[in-house]
Amino acid sequence: MAEADPQLDTDFTKLVADLAKDGRAAQRKLAAMSSEQKAAALHAAADELRARKTAILDANAKDVASGEERGLTGAMLDRLRLDPERLEGVASAVDAVADLPDPVGEEIDRNTQPNALVMTRVRIPVGLLGIIYESRPNVTADAAALCVRAGNAVLLRGGTEAVHSNRAIHQAMVAGLESAGVPAAAVQILPTQDRAAVGAMLKAAGLIDMVIPRGGKSLVERVQNEARVPVLAHLDGLCHTYVHSAADPAKARDIAVNAKLRRTGICGAMETLLIDAQFDGAADVLAAIADKGCELRGDGRARALDSRVAPASEDDWDTEYLDAILSVKIVDGLDEAIAHIEAHGSHHTDVIVTEDDAAAQQFMAEVDSAIVMRNASSQFADGGEFGLGAEIGIATGRLHARGPVALEGLTTYKWLVHGDGQTRP
Amino acid sequence: MAEADPQLDTDFTKLVADLAKDGRAAQRKLAAMSSEQKAAALHAAADELRARKTAILDANAKDVASGEERGLTGAMLDRLRLDPERLEGVASAVDAVADLPDPVGEEIDRNTQPNALVMTRVRIPVGLLGIIYESRPNVTADAAALCVRAGNAVLLRGGTEAVHSNRAIHQAMVAGLESAGVPAAAVQILPTQDRAAVGAMLKAAGLIDMVIPRGGKSLVERVQNEARVPVLAHLDGLCHTYVHSAADPAKARDIAVNAKLRRTGICGAMETLLIDAQFDGAADVLAAIADKGCELRGDGRARALDSRVAPASEDDWDTEYLDAILSVKIVDGLDEAIAHIEAHGSHHTDVIVTEDDAAAQQFMAEVDSAIVMRNASSQFADGGEFGLGAEIGIATGRLHARGPVALEGLTTYKWLVHGDGQTRP
Repeated sequence: MAEADPQLDTDFTKLVADLAKDGRAAQRKLAAMSSEQKAAALHAAADELRARKTAILDANAKDVASGEERGLTGAMLDRLRLDPERLEGVASAVDAVADLPDPVGEEIDRNTQPNALVMTRVRIPVGLLGIIYESRPNVTADAAALCVRAGNAVLLRGGTEAVHSNRAIHQAMVAGLESAGVPAAAVQILPTQDRAAVGAMLKAAGLIDMVIPRGGKSLVERVQNEARVPVLAHLDGLCHTYVHSAADPAKARDIAVNAKLRRTGICGAMETLLIDAQFDGAADVLAAIADKGCELRGDGRARALDSRVAPASEDDWDTEYLDAILSVKIVDGLDEAIAHIEAHGSHHTDVIVTEDDAAAQQFMAEVDSAIVMRNASSQFADGGEFGLGAEIGIATGRLHARGPVALEGLTTYKWLVHGDGQTRP
Repeated sequence: MAEADPQLDTDFTKLVADLAKDGRAAQRKLAAMSSEQKAAALHAAADELRARKTAILDANAKDVASGEERGLTGAMLDRLRLDPERLEGVASAVDAVADLPDPVGEEIDRNTQPNALVMTRVRIPVGLLGIIYESRPNVTADAAALCVRAGNAVLLRGGTEAVHSNRAIHQAMVAGLESAGVPAAAVQILPTQDRAAVGAMLKAAGLIDMVIPRGGKSLVERVQNEARVPVLAHLDGLCHTYVHSAADPAKARDIAVNAKLRRTGICGAMETLLIDAQFDGAADVLAAIADKGCELRGDGRARALDSRVAPASEDDWDTEYLDAILSVKIVDGLDEAIAHIEAHGSHHTDVIVTEDDAAAQQFMAEVDSAIVMRNASSQFADGGEFGLGAEIGIATGRLHARGPVALEGLTTYKWLVHGDGQTRP
């Protein structure tokens, strides 16, 4: 991109400020709506997505044609493409979010002080959110639905590849929401694809309450580096599985194969396998993974177990492959495994396979990751699998929300104090 | 301050990185200690503060002498000064924090999925915190104690005026903590007063997990503007009291006088009084405040009620006086009051005085402040008054923690998943 024109920057600052002002006003109205009203509005939005099927699929066809012209890869085109079945999936997902329990209004705490003041803490929407995402057009509907369910307004900015699809989906959602009394500005989409407008969103401190980037690492890093607003983000998913000496060999094999290979491109996929030198079934585990066509890169002791293990470089321990490649290290005990994860992990999801309760307890206490599992595949790292319903993403930061983030992560709280004339001595 | 020397900046980056590395290692050991062990260590720290009374008071005398030389105001010198009684207060506060319930380890959620995976969410320490504060030396002990109670390591940076006092208090705390098995690096103090070192702290993303600035607005603004690490901060306390038409006149008078004048310099002090045009006792309320020597600045209708009310300018509605000055506006109903607070407030603490439940409910739902009170003085905005024990501060941001922040605000959580060999289909 060329250097930004300062005049343009000013214009985008004003554009974002205007959108934010409208969004915040809409949010205040949305916040006053009941759970039932918000649910009905989301069902109306889902119905409108179905009613506008032709317009949305036509818009999507434009994006796909333009993507083909520009030589997008097959995988990218596949992520971009909608068909009647996928669009029905998008609409059904909105219906499902509408039916999730509304976290807003929940009383978190209540206590009565000696002076008879009653202190309560209740969940409220965060406010106006910004969602910045890449080419999947379903995010337009998913993210908007999650925001609205928790009483938030949202300013969306999708990828340029999907611009027509996103706008058509946005129009349908807004038509449905408006028909049920939600102000149109509760869900807005940035009317320009200029990247400087994203910069203006990221700098809109005090106007946008939180930005959630959804996409690849370069997008997330840009957002984290530029943002002056709070960011809830997922950066890396360098997940480990540690097979402890007291692991059940069959569980170890099945979990390792699943964690690596069920889907290799997701953030919860295992990238490094740590095997205890005292574990007897190491060769079987490696063979099972290699037999499925996965490339293995290991240290000397791992290579001695299976001739298909290539030598690992130091970089391998720090690499999130997102592919059918696995680094393997033989470790001497729990402490070395924990130290390796601390040194090389990304605090996303790490797993111990063991039948030994004390070892599991130590691992789960000491490994400082958003999700720590015992005897389960790291591919379960997903809000739906946690019983949270749809998720807006997985957060790898430490504050506000951590791990799978669903509706509760889109709320904050306020304190309500109920008095009867108390003054402070 | 002169322009930073790039070499120096590099050195400070390394200094902070080294301190952070030691702090993080200490934090991992601290996190493995039990509640009882942490409490015992804090009691030992309190005892060491008492044992080193002479050294601490001598160090403090140096700071006071140097402050007098440099012409600090009487109020500033008073905040800086320690005496045997105040030092005992500092030690007792550490004892009190030691006895607060430990939030770490608390299970927040638990659910069992259909595949028999058990998902739990447990509170853990945030990690390594940075506390940047101004001249009160007691913060060195208070902040360190709160951090340690919740299992966090901390890097302290106090004001230059109190440098000798802070170091003496820090040495005593560390001696006590170490005697009870807490690594010394759990509580570190920046060994330089160079402001560039503060800049290095604020940019230590990934090394310092959260920074809490405690001090005046210019400090907080600087921290918020420069920080690349998450900040938990208190910015403005522009608190309103709205006297509704159905207010009890005696409660309205007592609450208004207390909210403005009990202590004028604290963040929970009322700065703007909104009186409903339909409320009968307005003149009495204004007279009671003016009789106590408070300067009043009001709109035309307020001035008509009491000749001591001077004309308010537009700026008055946006001013946090922190002094015996009050702006007064007569409003036509609840909606205008809420709109005024939305336009001019700082989302800290706002109060309605009314006997009407419906009006109270609407005000408490629609006013978007960290604390919203009914029939109570805004001066109650304090963690101790909320039953939280000691507070690290009041947060005016929207995320992670809001309002009075005590031990729970110094924790985050992780998800623990307990399986028996589950793989994801």
